Parts: sequence; structure tokens; C-alpha cells
Amino acid sequence: MRGDLFDLEEERLGEEIKKRGAEVVLLQLPDGLKPLAARLASIVERAGASVIISGEPCYGACDVALAEARELNADLIIHYGHTMMLKDLDIPTIYFEAHAKISVEKAVRRAIGLLKPWRRIGLVTTVQHVENLEAARRILSSAGKEVYVGKASEILYPGQVLGCNYINAKVISSNVEAFLFVGGGRFHPLGLALATMKPVVAADPFEDRAYSLNGDAKRILKRRWAEIEEARKAETYGVIIGLKPGQKRLKEAFKVKKKIEEMRKKAYLISLREITDQKLRNFQEFEAYINTACPRISIDEASAFRQPVLTLKEAYVMLGEISWEKLLEEGII
Amino acid sequence: MRGDLFDLEEERLGEEIKKRGAEVVLLQLPDGLKPLAARLASIVERAGASVIISGEPCYGACDVALAEARELNADLIIHYGHTMMLKDLDIPTIYFEAHAKISVEKAVRRAIGLLKPWRRIGLVTTVQHVENLEAARRILSSAGKEVYVGKASEILYPGQVLGCNYINAKVISSNVEAFLFVGGGRFHPLGLALATMKPVVAADPFEDRAYSLNGDAKRILKRRWAEIEEARKAETYGVIIGLKPGQKRLKEAFKVKKKIEEMRKKAYLISLREITDQKLRNFQEFEAYINTACPRISIDEASAFRQPVLTLKEAYVMLGEISWEKLLEEGII
Repeated sequence: MRGDLFDLEEERLGEEIKKRGAEVVLLQLPDGLKPLAARLASIVERAGASVIISGEPCYGACDVALAEARELNADLIIHYGHTMMLKDLDIPTIYFEAHAKISVEKAVRRAIGLLKPWRRIGLVTTVQHVENLEAARRILSSAGKEVYVGKASEILYPGQVLGCNYINAKVISSNVEAFLFVGGGRFHPLGLALATMKPVVAADPFEDRAYSLNGDAKRILKRRWAEIEEARKAETYGVIIGLKPGQKRLKEAFKVKKKIEEMRKKAYLISLREITDQKLRNFQEFEAYINTACPRISIDEASAFRQPVLTLKEAYVMLGEISWEKLLEEGII
Repeated sequence: MRGDLFDLEEERLGEEIKKRGAEVVLLQLPDGLKPLAARLASIVERAGASVIISGEPCYGACDVALAEARELNADLIIHYGHTMMLKDLDIPTIYFEAHAKISVEKAVRRAIGLLKPWRRIGLVTTVQHVENLEAARRILSSAGKEVYVGKASEILYPGQVLGCNYINAKVISSNVEAFLFVGGGRFHPLGLALATMKPVVAADPFEDRAYSLNGDAKRILKRRWAEIEEARKAETYGVIIGLKPGQKRLKEAFKVKKKIEEMRKKAYLISLREITDQKLRNFQEFEAYINTACPRISIDEASAFRQPVLTLKEAYVMLGEISWEKLLEEGII
């Protein structure tokens, strides 16, 4: 059971509920932690509050269930699995980061062989493993590597990245020849490769294995360029506004709509909570979309969409306001 | 193009926007009308307002996009395709019913043969065809039928039904031997069969065809009973709260949770916007679900769910508070 893999801070959970005298708590978990929902809900109940578990997907700290909490008259949100990103929310929100309780050493040792061609290594991870980064660094150093860990943001731990934020990798990128990502899943190491265009090796401590992300980023970039070219031909665009609190860019959406109209083309604003091809297919007039919400949806799920769905940055390449080369230099994410 | 099939009241749309001085309009359409979104959005823009098209699904008047409008700072909701159900909403909402502009006569004539065994016929439709009900009645009368049209609710036109509300059929059910449903799709005639347990013939004016719903309702009821029996064995239940304004039954959800706990079993509340098997599968502790939102999701999509998802009424059968026979008598919807 995943409950043994993560530090759920169960004691702090009960204390926070009591201390704040919460009456109705909305409990929000990423899908991977939802199997633990009942266990955590029971703690909230024993601490004296009613609890409703959000059954909606949750992919990041950008996605705090504020609307849901308002609709349910919840007076406290308990958000698991991410570091705080949004401040001063109008419903009190407590973050539980759910650090992993497992060792990363075996996976990192397995990565050493794959890192053979390079000496200067950037070390990167998710919030789940920030406490283990020092252990990873020691193993790399012992293997003769020069290790760099970036710290460029107040909201991030040293070396920590988010699906949409690789600043801690970017600031050390010019110093290193390759990156080692420590953590589970392909989502973050792929983002790291796209954001830095450097070789990336991933060490997955949940599966005790290591692998390279050779070529994945290049393949994706080729596809992105093809989508920009295809989107260029459209006459009518849908500009997608994401409804998740940290993904909602109303001003940017209105602005890009105006830019498209200045080119004597048509653009309409569309609001979406989860962005799926099925929902977009209901519209028949839009030949291409600009996605002002999470850029990873455009990039990672391109093959899931029938029509081009450009990120905001890509839209400005299409509109001729920045060059493709400049975008690659800045990083597509 | 569907635009010619429905009366979109385009003139009234422009006038309402101007009259109210709306600044940001959220335009909400059922999926079947979404191909017309850009056309309607252009009218709103020409009337002087900004417009955002909701890309989320919308299945009924229960599903007014209030949370979405709040999140987008919209000051007016334009809701197409349904009659008003919810009053005194905290964001002004204008309903456009989108009556169909097509004749029902051919389809109704084709239904006469299928209605042969019965003389007393209940006539039922959706809001799209209420203006054509008189034409349908004349054809039935000419064919020697005794026609009944129910009117039992202030919010419904005579003979009108909703996916979750068949009161206009129920009030005439004891007078008739069979029902004729006029309209497109299987959703409403199936609900009619389940709500009344009478023979139902459907006349579809969009396809100019008629068909009987023989046996469908019985097959579904057999499955519902099997699900109740299976749910009875569960030890841990998820009680689903729907987030759509007209489907949110917080008190009912808390109440059924308490009833389950009184039987020394466990129950947890789960909030969901769209209820899908994929979302429920993230939870591993719940062996059965009680769905306090739209009952049609449980009934029509039973085969889509891996575990039993009972309606609220079915839950009370499971809990022994009402009998299955009584439920059938009242109508499962």
C-alpha cells in the first residue's frame, strides 16, 4: 500500500483540523494518493470535522480546488502531494507535501552507468524526494561527478522542479553536461529535457531502475514545429482558458485573441476545466487552438488531439512575434 | 448545419445583451449545439460584450455554469437548450430553449403502426418540440387514438419531460396504455419507459423514423436489482455529491452516510463534477457507491462502472427503508 511509501504527516493533519476548528474539510489528493483517501478522511473525522474527498483529478499545486470548496461550503482545503504555489487564497488551504519515505540510493547507483559520458551533472527532483537529494549527491560525487543543484525560487526547495517550472535546472544548465532526475514517472524528466535540451537520465526510486530520455525531447520538438505550421493555416481559432486557479490566464487569453484578430482572422475564447480532445471535438468551427492553461497538456498530449493545440509561447511563434530559435533557447516549457 | 434546425432567437440574444449592458458573457450550450458556438458568440460580441464559450459538457438545466461564471468574472450566463429549472441564481442567467424548427409529422405518422395494439396514448416530448405537440396530437386523433397530455408542473410545458423528471407522463400514466415520445435520441424515451413502466414508442423527427423501446426498461431494472444486491455486500461505501448546481444534494449525502454508519459500515463523501468510472477507479477502498447526483448516470451508464453505483432511491432499498416493489411503483426515476 502506498501509505507506507509517503510521509502523510497524519499527526499534523489531526492537529491542524483541531487547532483551526474546521467544520467542513475538502480533502484533495493527486490520483496516485487517492487510494489513501479514506484513511486520511477518517483522521479528519476523528479530529471533529466533516470531510468531503474531492474525486476530481489534481495534477499540481496550480490546481487547488477553490471553486469546489466554495460550492461545498467547505471552510478548509487539505491539499496533498504538492508544495505551496498560490498564496492568499480566499479559502484557507493547508499543503501536505507527502515526502517519499523510500531510499533513492539503489536507483541513483543504477544511473551512474548511464551518466558515464558526462562529468558535470545537474541534480534535480520533485518535492517527494528533496530530503534524499543529499544522498544522491554523495553517490554521484563518489563516482567522480561534479554535482550542481540549482536554487532560484523562493517557492521551491533546492533542486526541486514542477511539471511546468524548471527554473532550478535552467539556472545551472550552462554549468552541466547532463541532468540526473530523481523520482517516479516520465512526466518530470521529460519536461526537464524539453526545458533544458540537455541529456537527461532518470533514477526511479519506486522501481529501483534508471533510464535515459534519449531522443524523446527532439521527437516532441519536431512535432511542436509541425503543429505551429499547421496552426498557421487556420482561419478560426479557439483560445482555451483553463479554469484551475493557477492556470487561469484571462488577460493573456484576451490578448492573444486580439493579436489573432489583428491578422484578420477569427478567434473565440473557450473555458475548460480539463482539456480533452473529446470536448474540443464538439466544436466544429475551430481549426486550431491556443492553450493558455498548462503548457504540458499541449506538449505531452499532442497526439491525443485531432487539431493543433499550441501553447501560448508557440502561439507567439506562429504570430511572428518571437522566433522558433528564440523559443528553443528560452526553453519550450 | 444544425443552425437551421433550431430557433436560436438570435435577435433576442443581441437585445438581451444590450439591454442588460453585460460586460462578460459566459455562453453555455449542450454538446449538440456547440457547433453553433462561434455564430452565437459573434452576436454577443456585436452587441458589445466580451464572450467566453464554456467548453464543458452540459446535460440539462440542472447544470448551469455558475462556478465557471464566477471563476471567469462573467456577469451574465446565456444558457441554451433547456427550460429554466433553477431560480434566483446568484449570477443572472438567461435561458434560450432552442425549439426545433422541423416538422414532427412524418415521424409521428410512422409511429402509428407501432402504436397499433393500444388506443389510449400518452403524448410526451422535450422542450424542443413543445410547439409541435398539437400537430402530433391531431395525427394520433385522426388515427383513432384517445390522446392524453399531462400538465403537472409550473416549470414544464404540457407534455414536456426532462431526463430526470417525468411527472407530466406519470400523472396520465393510469389513463393510458402506451406512450408516444416525440423527439431525438434514446435518452428521454428510455427514461419515460423506466419512469412509467408502460410501452413506449419514439418518433424521431430529426431522422423521420419511429421505433419501440421494447424490453429495454425491463433489462435495465434487472440490472438495477443485481447492483443493489451486490452493493448490499459492501463494507465501505463512497457517497457521491454532484457539483452541478441542480444536482448537489449535500444534506441527502450526509444523511445516507449516517444511515450506512448506523449499520456499522463505513461511508465517505466524494465530490465530483462529471461522474466517470475512471475517476472512481482511483479510489481503492470503496466497494460500492451511492450517487446523490443525477440518477440517470447510475441507471444509463451502469455498464460503464466497474462497481455498483446506486441512485439515492436504490440506496434506501438496499438499506431496507423502502421495498423494491414500492420503488418500482413510484418509478425508478
